[in-house]
Amino acid sequence: MSTRVDIPAEKSAVAKVTAPLIGASAHGKGGYKKGLAIFDFVLRLGAITAALAATATMGTSGQTLPFFTQFFQFEAGYDDLPTFQFFVIAMAIVSGYLVLSLPFSIVAIIRPQAIGPRLLLIILDTVALTLNTAAAAAATAIVYLAHNGNASANWLGICQQFGDFCQSVSGAVVASFIAAVMLMFLIVISALALRKH
Amino acid sequence: MSTRVDIPAEKSAVAKVTAPLIGASAHGKGGYKKGLAIFDFVLRLGAITAALAATATMGTSGQTLPFFTQFFQFEAGYDDLPTFQFFVIAMAIVSGYLVLSLPFSIVAIIRPQAIGPRLLLIILDTVALTLNTAAAAAATAIVYLAHNGNASANWLGICQQFGDFCQSVSGAVVASFIAAVMLMFLIVISALALRKH
Repeated sequence: MSTRVDIPAEKSAVAKVTAPLIGASAHGKGGYKKGLAIFDFVLRLGAITAALAATATMGTSGQTLPFFTQFFQFEAGYDDLPTFQFFVIAMAIVSGYLVLSLPFSIVAIIRPQAIGPRLLLIILDTVALTLNTAAAAAATAIVYLAHNGNASANWLGICQQFGDFCQSVSGAVVASFIAAVMLMFLIVISALALRKH
Repeated sequence: MSTRVDIPAEKSAVAKVTAPLIGASAHGKGGYKKGLAIFDFVLRLGAITAALAATATMGTSGQTLPFFTQFFQFEAGYDDLPTFQFFVIAMAIVSGYLVLSLPFSIVAIIRPQAIGPRLLLIILDTVALTLNTAAAAAATAIVYLAHNGNASANWLGICQQFGDFCQSVSGAVVASFIAAVMLMFLIVISALALRKH
């Protein structure tokens, strides 16, 4: 038993011509998404470097002054200020997350059309960006205070005494801001890769 | 001129049954995206409220103590601390952006399948989230210092003297964190709405 369908010849010809075009278009989109995925991977490596540098610089910062009284030796370390402790913990978490996210980034390169890894990456990247920005901003507020002090609150700057400590802490803050900017670009890349066309 | 195509009857019957199903499925996806867009709009209204509350609370915070010497009156205001000034400016920018983003959110409700407004919203939301988090975290670091002081840096807490000021400032920080959490959900919603299926 069979049904007969009549198709005009012109329509059939159109179908033959457009079919390969659609195929080529889909392939071109895949290449564009693959490029985005590779850029994502490279940017992720850069963000790991910046985040690790920030963690290490802050974690090893500390300075002991070359003079001391009988009862007290003057030293400053990141663990004297709770904000800097938070900075080290938060940036360590961000670094760890970024390293663990590399396999998902590789999956996105191999399968540019897959949505799952992309969606996971954009959501976790947003969380990491928030943590990173919070650490960087809080540390910046304290570093500014350490440099300039505040006359109204009667807080004196400590960078006159602990110049080396302040310098390494400032370096760590700059590195964490670089990591934050890279994370922002990672989110934008994921958003571009998630869209339909 | 015509081409003859033979279609087995069973296949034709299957095609007839599945066609309406596919149509219903496509409609369901549109409804799902429309629901996400409406949720986006409501969440955006909540974020505006929280951000405006944070801005207003911090901007009007200030306390004058009821005693004074001949030359000096004791008062504390948000403009005494640069971090709180940054907080007010940043939260005002975030509030303004959120209000301006409402039309785009409405466009996303009317046209759930449109990609342009979604992509614009997710990128600008990311920028707003970063600004909001930076303001909240920096203010938190200073508020913590105002409450507890820091023995190592020889900074004394000022909340013993300026209790009301500290309370309104803490309230503003909490409101800004609520706005930040809402912005994070907005980004996740946009990411879900951007995906293919």
